[in-house]
Amino acid sequence: MVETRETRETRDITEEVRRVVKASGVRDGLCHVMVLHATAAVVVNENDDPNIGVDLVDALERLVPKGGGWLHDRVDGNAHAHIQAAILGPSETVPIDEGDLQLGTWQGIMLVELEGPRRRRLVVRIVEA
Amino acid sequence: MVETRETRETRDITEEVRRVVKASGVRDGLCHVMVLHATAAVVVNENDDPNIGVDLVDALERLVPKGGGWLHDRVDGNAHAHIQAAILGPSETVPIDEGDLQLGTWQGIMLVELEGPRRRRLVVRIVEA
Amino acid sequence: MVETRETRETRDITEEVRRVVKASGVRDGLCHVMVLHATAAVVVNENDDPNIGVDLVDALERLVPKGGGWLHDRVDGNAHAHIQAAILGPSETVPIDEGDLQLGTWQGIMLVELEGPRRRRLVVRIVEA
Repeated sequence: MVETRETRETRDITEEVRRVVKASGVRDGLCHVMVLHATAAVVVNENDDPNIGVDLVDALERLVPKGGGWLHDRVDGNAHAHIQAAILGPSETVPIDEGDLQLGTWQGIMLVELEGPRRRRLVVRIVEA
Repeated sequence: MVETRETRETRDITEEVRRVVKASGVRDGLCHVMVLHATAAVVVNENDDPNIGVDLVDALERLVPKGGGWLHDRVDGNAHAHIQAAILGPSETVPIDEGDLQLGTWQGIMLVELEGPRRRRLVVRIVEA
Repeated sequence: MVETRETRETRDITEEVRRVVKASGVRDGLCHVMVLHATAAVVVNENDDPNIGVDLVDALERLVPKGGGWLHDRVDGNAHAHIQAAILGPSETVPIDEGDLQLGTWQGIMLVELEGPRRRRLVVRIVEA
């Protein structure tokens, strides 16, 4: 469970996922991370400069603006967040190698909040190779 | 196999996928759903208000319009559908928990048709944890 | 390892991935392909007309232009490539059936270079069903 603080926000969750991988004892396999909500997403990208996460949610807001004439807004006002979430996708799969996440130097796993602040439920599932 | 009815359409396929998961007898693992075509996609998003699916394909059409000066249109006229499909991606992976798909309350698995109507072939592959 | 030649480029890597699948001897399972960099991506799409790959990177450049006022550009000048990569995602998962990749007639696995030319490290992980 992750508690987000902003309306739109990108949060690094790599260390939380890594702990689950290490606790599993699996040496070689796949790690799947999914957020169980339809207005949030999981991505893999650089986490060294936090501004990349800000740029990402800003770009999505430019591409699919809130109140952009969407049909679902008659019901709920959050169509933009649903569309943005569908474009990014709710999950990422990362290889497990020698008991650890296999990521590039500049890659981290990130939760993308698109309609916060909210409590977001995440699931990590590990499959052995 | 799913037969779509519109040029652009989002179709809930959660129950079809759930049946495959239940029939497999797998209690804990990953379920991978893929459409075997390059102008369609699979997403996970809200399925309660069908207008979200309409908004999604409308947003894609605004972002990557048909006839937007694409090179591939000299051959086939469907470059927009290919680009839209690549942005969404052809597959989703969903955890299996206690013998069922582990989805959030507002999440469903959806086939997105981007150049229909057509018969679309879907593959569900299940891996045990 | 793939050496890209252009700033933006889409490169078919289906045969390289297929060789890894065949060498593994796995008959039935999942094949996960990931690029270990934050300004490149992996997609599944048509590979018959190479112009589709050109259209894809051109569309991304129209949607998220270089120098589009991104915060990360104060540090590195490549925010657009990071955002484009996050939208496409660094990996794809493809089913393995009868010892081979299960793809549609018009589907191939492609590396998308968004800030080249560079040497890109790819990882293929296979899990048996």
